[in-house]
Amino acid sequence: MSYNVAALSRLIEQFERLPGIGRKTAQRLAFYLLNLPKGEAEAFSAAILEAREKIHQCKLCCNLTDAELCPVCRNPSRDPTVICVVEDPRDVMAFERTREMDCLYHVLHGVISPMDSIGPDQLKIKELLSRLNSGEVQEVIMATNPTVEGEATAMYISRLLKPLGVKVTRLAYGIPVGGDLEYADEITLKRAIDGRQEI
Amino acid sequence: MSYNVAALSRLIEQFERLPGIGRKTAQRLAFYLLNLPKGEAEAFSAAILEAREKIHQCKLCCNLTDAELCPVCRNPSRDPTVICVVEDPRDVMAFERTREMDCLYHVLHGVISPMDSIGPDQLKIKELLSRLNSGEVQEVIMATNPTVEGEATAMYISRLLKPLGVKVTRLAYGIPVGGDLEYADEITLKRAIDGRQEI
Repeated sequence: MSYNVAALSRLIEQFERLPGIGRKTAQRLAFYLLNLPKGEAEAFSAAILEAREKIHQCKLCCNLTDAELCPVCRNPSRDPTVICVVEDPRDVMAFERTREMDCLYHVLHGVISPMDSIGPDQLKIKELLSRLNSGEVQEVIMATNPTVEGEATAMYISRLLKPLGVKVTRLAYGIPVGGDLEYADEITLKRAIDGRQEI
Repeated sequence: MSYNVAALSRLIEQFERLPGIGRKTAQRLAFYLLNLPKGEAEAFSAAILEAREKIHQCKLCCNLTDAELCPVCRNPSRDPTVICVVEDPRDVMAFERTREMDCLYHVLHGVISPMDSIGPDQLKIKELLSRLNSGEVQEVIMATNPTVEGEATAMYISRLLKPLGVKVTRLAYGIPVGGDLEYADEITLKRAIDGRQEI
């Protein structure tokens, strides 16, 4: 491209690296930022630096936080006898949005995936096991995604935990609320029938 | 949301303000940046600041540049007798990608749009007129978008320019290359027939 303004190209390239952002969207976002008042563009830039600087993993549950412990682990009204194990900090956000959880979490930061050469050692499984040493925890809810890797990880961890005498549960499978039976896949339907409950 | 890390929320909010980015995408982008090596996150932040700091409008054509004149206006091999008038700096990029343009540009930074209370005074029309004073310019190509506002703006400017003895042209209308006649709208088809050329 003969029309080339270095600072602009660099900004567009930075946006283009983000997941799901193509060339055209990157251009649109870069031009949007250029048209913002100067203070707001600076605030955007500062928010990136600040987040990258301050946010790290919670010492206890490996969720993201800007303090030593995350807001959930700090909360004394949470039930410390139940731990919900998730793949990703975003899953914690999703559960917290339900406002139904009063347990603690544990974030694995991934799933076992031989295809991507991610084994159990790369996940926060050791940290989970050491939380069980106190004997306070009575139940571990495996809330990894219902994918092949998520299932395998849940199975792997449950085999590690059962000898410790901890109850290990898995999220219920079934038809999603608001979904349409006609479009549900066979496996989901079968699981929904297997897990049927008396009303 | 009871789970709230201030620095993370601020970063998500900043992404959410960008056009076409919703809550979920903003979360995904923010988490992606957090997982980047520190240097790369800093480079992203710096690119925003640098672009906002350095980039301004070209003194001549109002295109974006980091120097006094934009790369096109600086280029002595460009034909200074033809000016292509566009709405937006992105349109310049689109034309430059064709590698067929050897004229200069003029960026209006918008179109006349009474609905958004944008009148001729908010556009870079005065700057265009002053470029014609030297008498060097022989043709002005109106390359605003083929929308109602783009057409009105092209018409408005052409009426201003004609008394100055400058040739004013408009981009050709017709069927887009690679398009399907079956799906072309009636107005485009009519324009394509009206503008038919001998082969």
